[in-house]
Parts: sequence; C-alpha cells; structure tokens
Amino acid sequence: MARVLTPRAEDFPRWYQDLIAKAQLADNGPVRGTMVIRPAGYAIWERMQAEMDARIKAAGAENAYFPLFIPESYLKREAEHVEGFSPELAVVTHGGGKQLAEPVVVRPTSETVIGEFMAKWIGSYRDLPLLLNQWANVVRWEMRPRIFLRTSEFLWQEGHTAHVDEADARAYARRILHEVYEDFMVRELGIPVLVGLKTARERFAGATATYTCEGMMGDGKALQLGTSHELGQNFAKAFDMTFTSAAGSVEHAWTTSWGTSTRMLGGLIMVHGDDNGLRVPPRLAPVQAHIMVVKAGDGVAEAAAKLRDALRDAGVRVGLDDRTDTPFGRRAVDAELKGYPVRVEVGPRDLAAGNAVLVRRTNGSKTPVPVTDVVAAVLAALEADQQSLHDEALALRESRTVTVQTLAEAIEAAATGWARVPWSEVGPAGETEANGKGVTVRCLVRADGSVPDSEDEPDLVAILARAY
Amino acid sequence: MARVLTPRAEDFPRWYQDLIAKAQLADNGPVRGTMVIRPAGYAIWERMQAEMDARIKAAGAENAYFPLFIPESYLKREAEHVEGFSPELAVVTHGGGKQLAEPVVVRPTSETVIGEFMAKWIGSYRDLPLLLNQWANVVRWEMRPRIFLRTSEFLWQEGHTAHVDEADARAYARRILHEVYEDFMVRELGIPVLVGLKTARERFAGATATYTCEGMMGDGKALQLGTSHELGQNFAKAFDMTFTSAAGSVEHAWTTSWGTSTRMLGGLIMVHGDDNGLRVPPRLAPVQAHIMVVKAGDGVAEAAAKLRDALRDAGVRVGLDDRTDTPFGRRAVDAELKGYPVRVEVGPRDLAAGNAVLVRRTNGSKTPVPVTDVVAAVLAALEADQQSLHDEALALRESRTVTVQTLAEAIEAAATGWARVPWSEVGPAGETEANGKGVTVRCLVRADGSVPDSEDEPDLVAILARAY
Repeated sequence: MARVLTPRAEDFPRWYQDLIAKAQLADNGPVRGTMVIRPAGYAIWERMQAEMDARIKAAGAENAYFPLFIPESYLKREAEHVEGFSPELAVVTHGGGKQLAEPVVVRPTSETVIGEFMAKWIGSYRDLPLLLNQWANVVRWEMRPRIFLRTSEFLWQEGHTAHVDEADARAYARRILHEVYEDFMVRELGIPVLVGLKTARERFAGATATYTCEGMMGDGKALQLGTSHELGQNFAKAFDMTFTSAAGSVEHAWTTSWGTSTRMLGGLIMVHGDDNGLRVPPRLAPVQAHIMVVKAGDGVAEAAAKLRDALRDAGVRVGLDDRTDTPFGRRAVDAELKGYPVRVEVGPRDLAAGNAVLVRRTNGSKTPVPVTDVVAAVLAALEADQQSLHDEALALRESRTVTVQTLAEAIEAAATGWARVPWSEVGPAGETEANGKGVTVRCLVRADGSVPDSEDEPDLVAILARAY
Repeated sequence: MARVLTPRAEDFPRWYQDLIAKAQLADNGPVRGTMVIRPAGYAIWERMQAEMDARIKAAGAENAYFPLFIPESYLKREAEHVEGFSPELAVVTHGGGKQLAEPVVVRPTSETVIGEFMAKWIGSYRDLPLLLNQWANVVRWEMRPRIFLRTSEFLWQEGHTAHVDEADARAYARRILHEVYEDFMVRELGIPVLVGLKTARERFAGATATYTCEGMMGDGKALQLGTSHELGQNFAKAFDMTFTSAAGSVEHAWTTSWGTSTRMLGGLIMVHGDDNGLRVPPRLAPVQAHIMVVKAGDGVAEAAAKLRDALRDAGVRVGLDDRTDTPFGRRAVDAELKGYPVRVEVGPRDLAAGNAVLVRRTNGSKTPVPVTDVVAAVLAALEADQQSLHDEALALRESRTVTVQTLAEAIEAAATGWARVPWSEVGPAGETEANGKGVTVRCLVRADGSVPDSEDEPDLVAILARAY
C-alpha cells in the first residue's frame, strides 16, 4: 500500500496533522487557533458526548445552559481565577453597533457566572447538593494552537456543583473523576489513564485540589484528558453563595467543577492511531462495521444490503459503501484512515463461494467468513478489538514508564516516557527545575496507586513527563 | 388552588414571564439580553434536539461544527447578508491581551464561514449534494429581549447544503421544511403550524426564497418557529463555491440553509400553557409520568418504586417525587407548573383500597385507578393527550382565523388573530401599510394550502397577523 501518512516514527507531530487532514476529521478555522470539526470527527465527538452524558446523569447531575458572555467584573471577583485566565480572554467591546458600557468576556469557563446563579437558587441545605452540567463552547486565546489539543475555541462539558460541606464536595469531585471520567476513558476510549492529584502549581486557577486523568500518547508524552476540581469555599465566598444549615446557621457552600473536552479527540488519535490512520475503539465508533461492495456483480448489492440489515438488527452501528464507480483501493485506504473497527468486503468472487471478507482494523487481519456467520464474527471481533486496543495502550505505557529515585533520573527518563519518582525527591523546587527542562509533574499518586487528598501526604509518587 | 400565575386573559406577556420564572425554566443572564436555561427548561430542549436530530439525519445531513468567530470581512462578501446582520453583531476587538489586527464577529449565523469551507471541500458534482448541520449558539444583539423569543444569544441548529442545481436545492429546502420541521412541530410539539412562503420583505438576508412554519400562540399572535431558505447562487458566488459538472463545465453550486432554535420553547409555552402552568405534550416530555408519594405510610414507598419500575419497563419516561417532608400541596402546584403530562399520586388511603390516583395535566381529570392497571392507563392517557393538545391548538387557530377580502379588514382582524386575504389585495404597498400598524404578512400559501414557489404566482392567499 502506498504511503499515505508521514510515519509516526519519522515525525509524530506531522503524522498527527496528516492524519487529521486525510481522515477528514478537522480543518483549521479562518480565525487563528479556531477549528472546523468535520463530520467524520464530529460523529466521534457525538459518541463521546452520548457516553459521557449518560454517566453524568447517572451521577445525578442535570444539564443546563449558561450565557456565553460574562461581565468582565465577574472574572475579577476570585483573585487566582482572574490571574489564571486574563491572558487568554477574548473581549467583546461592541454590540448592536455601539460600544458597550462594560466590556464582556467570552467565557473561558463558567465558574463565575454559574456561581452567581447558584447563589440565587440556593436557600437552605435542602437545595443541596446542587449538581449541574453544561455542554458548551469556550474560548481561551491560544498562541500556539494545535487542532483538538490547543484551540482558541473548543467544545466541552463543564460540571459545577455545590455541597453542604467539604467532605461531600470532595466525595462528589472524586465520584466524577472515577465513575464518569476514568470509567469512560478506560471502557470506551480504551485509554488506560493514570488518575492522580495535581501539585499546587498545576492546579486549576481558584481550586483547592485538582484531580486528573493522564494518558500516555504514542510518542511517550502525557495528555491531560480530564480534570475534576474541589474549589473549597473560594467561589462561594466570591459570589456570596450561602445556605441555611439544618442547625439554622448561615454558611458558605463548598463547590466543585470538572471538565472534559474535544481534546479527547486528540488523545484518541495519538493513543490508537497507526501509520495507516485512525483506529477507533469499537464501543466508541460511530460506524462499527463498514460494509464495502468490492465491485458490482450478480447479487452483490443485495448481499451487502442483507448484511447491513442483519448487522443493524444485531445492534451494530453499520455503514455501507457501494460507490463502485470509485476504485476499491482508494476506498480501502480511506476506510483505513477513518479507522472503522471492522470492514466487511463483499465482492463477486468471494460471494460465489458463499463468503465475505472480514478485515479487522486493529490487527489488519483479513479472513473469509461464510456470509451466514458474518454477524457472529463481527460481534466477536468488536469485543476482542476493544480489549486489544486498550491492552496495547497499557503495554506501551508500562514499557515506557520507569521507576527512579532521583529528580535527575526522572528528568532524563521523561525524554522518552514517564518517570515515577518519590515526590519527596522532587518537591516544589524540583518541580521548578523540571519545568525549566520542559518536564512537568503530571500528578501525584499513593504507593498503592490510589489518589491522595493532599500533596503533603507521606510517601507519594510523582509522575514526571513531557506533556501536550 | 391559590393563584400562582397572572391569568393569561389578564396579562398574557406577564403570564408568560411568570410561568418561565415559577416553572424554573429560565432566568435572565447578567449581560442584557442573554438567558440562563435552567434544568427544567433544558431537559425539554434536549428532547427537542433528540427528535429533530433524528429527522435531520434521516434526511441525510451530517453534523459538523464551525467556529464561533468569523472574520469581519466574510460577512461583507454577500451584500444583503451584511446589511441584514450588521446592526446585530457582537464584535471581539481584543484577544489574548492584545488588540486584534482584524476584528472578529461572533457568528449571528454561519452561512459565510460554512460557504468558505464548502468551497474548499467541493470539487466535482460527485461531492454534491453536501448536506451539513450544526447545533450551536449564535449571537444577535437584541434591543428588546424576551426570554426564548428574542435573546442576544440563543441555541439552535443550522443546516447548510450545496447542490448541483436549483431544482435539487429547492427540493431539499422543502424536504427539510416538511419532513423535519413541520413533522416535528405537528407530531411532537403538538403545534399545528401553517407552512408557507415569506414575502420578499420578510426573506432571510441573502436568500432567494424563505419558507416558514408559523404557529398561533394563545393570544392569537403568530410565532415563526422555523425557516428553510433557498440561497440561490448568492453565497456560492461570494465564496467561489464551484464544482465540475458531469459534462465537464465549472459551475457555481446552489445552496440552502435552515434553522430552528430555543425560540421553540417560547412557542411551546404560549401554545400549550394554561393558567396553572406549562403543559408539555407527552411525546416531547422529558418526564411523561410523574409519580408523587402523597405522604409516608405502610407500603407507600415500595408501591411507588414498583410503579416507577413498571412504567419504565413499559418505555415511559418517569420521575419520582418522594419528598414527603415538603407539603403535598406545594409539590402538586409545582408539578402543575412544570406540566408533567400525567401524575400518579400514591398515598396510604388510596393504596389501602388498591388504588393510585391518575391526574392528567391536559384536562385536569383525577381518577382512582387500580394499581395493577396504572401502566395501561398511563399509556392510554399519554397517547390521548398528545392528540388533544394538538386539537386544542388547532381549534384555537381556526376560531381566531378569518377570511377577508380587503387589506383594511385584514389589518382589523389581525388585532385578535390571523387574517387570510388575497395577496393581490395586499402586495408590497399593502404590506408597508400593514407594517406601519404592527401587522406583518406571515406567509403566502396557495388556495389549496400548498406552498408556492414565488410570490408572483396567481391566486395566493396572504396570512396577516401581529407576531412575536
């Protein structure tokens, strides 16, 4: 097969951009840093949304929608928040043909405006917890944009919740972290994320604790795929969000926020893509079985249509490519690029022998299968390949992660993968040193792999890596 | 029952605002003209999206996402378009802490940016039709905002398609009009919309034809609920969107666009709401059967949970209110406000007799039903009440529509409802006169009710009304 993409080993960033362009996932927008998500990319995002949304609702949160425009003054109420976001803001100064009395910012995130409304809606402890989520676009002006990973506008979900006390807020931030984010990423995305606590330096602007899901990309770098924050009473105090407790006292609420975005599309590509294109995990894939008519012939179109119906009846998301006026080779290359998990090729020669050919994107195998067995074979392949993509990603992570004892060793190891090193050997000073060399502390975990409450706990392990 | 809302007959606009606030559907946002869609309102919007999206996909369109920010220069390429939208634009002048070299506008609609990309993606006739849709927020600065009806930011879907010739573009604009919009509005929203052609004056900025779905609200005014436009070759020429035809010539494509928005939530309220609150048509309702525990008692919680499971198993979307620490009367008022189609009240006294009480929101009936018959009774009520809400709206429209022969009579009739009058008696001059009196030509239809291709066809009927 002719070389379609720059090979990963040759130039990973170039391969990434090639793949996005040739698989028609996205384009750069006309305003610097913005992107156009094309149908092939957006269909995957819709599947991500559906799976995430079901988990968010199962965790008790309700969807709502808050305005795109936020008064500049709101951002300024929480000191760390304004400092964190000011350099990235887009500012609207004119509306309806006139200069605005107060400029408004395009939301970089909605803590402030949602804080304002939660304060209005919460009266007593009976109104808590208040669990909200929104699917929206946000804007953070990017100087070095890269599609899906860093764009001036991106799509995301942002959850915002208020609780009666710190323990309830913490439990909920962690519930989202594990039951929504980690579960989705491991089971659907097939990405074995490492879950931990961010250091103070890497925390969200205004948070008291930030939990993260970190994935290892195909080049050994880390990508932060989702974060869940405890905000303490910072935003509640900034927006006077109080409630009457069961005992009758007036108290500030404890809030959380948590988000995942179209950045996950970048992670999906960089974890599962190969030199022929994307590989979409079967459970996530908008099209799981892609039926291709090889060429026209006696009964071929009918057989393809019958297979499509049988697969659909079996609950498989199925596509049908019968564009026999386009060369089969070109269509096959396109199918590889798009990463459909299973292709079912139907052509006159195989059909004469009662067969179709099953092509599995994950391992590239091509197997003639009796037409009557296609549904069972597809179902088995989808299940097996979901697991094997996950296992392949896990094997890569394990092979590229080393355990070391000093900061110097960790920084060296981060040139090619991840380093596990005692946090006591790093600390804030070591973190500064690492940052100077392009290496960051991705997160802290306990020795048993569980997520710490504070970076001051003893015996924590720091994961150091280069990151997107 | 105590008066909760201003009665419709007393002050319809006040009733509308009261209902939105008390049913907790939405709030005004902090920036003038923006809105916060609360969970009770957003859940209805999600149901609208799901039903619409399925129809849009069935019509062959694929979802994509285009940027929020559009270079100011794009808007200026199509003369009528820039003139139509300039007064409503929000302009971003600063990004990332710096003044921008070229200001960008926040999309009021995406014809221009999508035109730019379609031009890139289309090469030959084989790439056509290109059928795209996006779900997004748009901004049109509003001087006289009203929640859901006119807001500076609103949520919508906008379809954009390109075709080989005018006939194909027209057929598709009309397919969306009937198979997506009219079908959704009549079958799901329960609003018997009148479908017709806009006059040249009321056309979308840059369109050659605008088709519309108009609904009659509870006060006799009209609301435009969705529009589908033929754009001719205007945008294709402005963005150099050409294709190589089957014959080998290079031609400009013919495009369409079509949209519906959160304005439909306003229509839903004003068509089906009554003096006790909202009434949501059963097929649309996020919660179709709302189980209420009247008060705690022997076996009550268990019976309520069993009914919930049984209804869910029967495919009913079901909610459960067991907050027995809140007075039942207050909860019942809230359920009326929210407009759940059917309430199933479970209390110790009825349960002792083996009954639950079925309360139908549409007609207010309260009927004791044996617990074993509840599922069947709920299913029957949901089906019947979907129809009766539609029929009630149709009866109102018919009773408030008069057929007249002169412009003067039409303007007079529009004070309380709709007037049907020969378009030949109105014409552009009469339209100007009517506009001066707060009356607009909502649309033109043929005598047999079908949708004309042009306002120059003979024997057209004009529908005149006041409108939102």
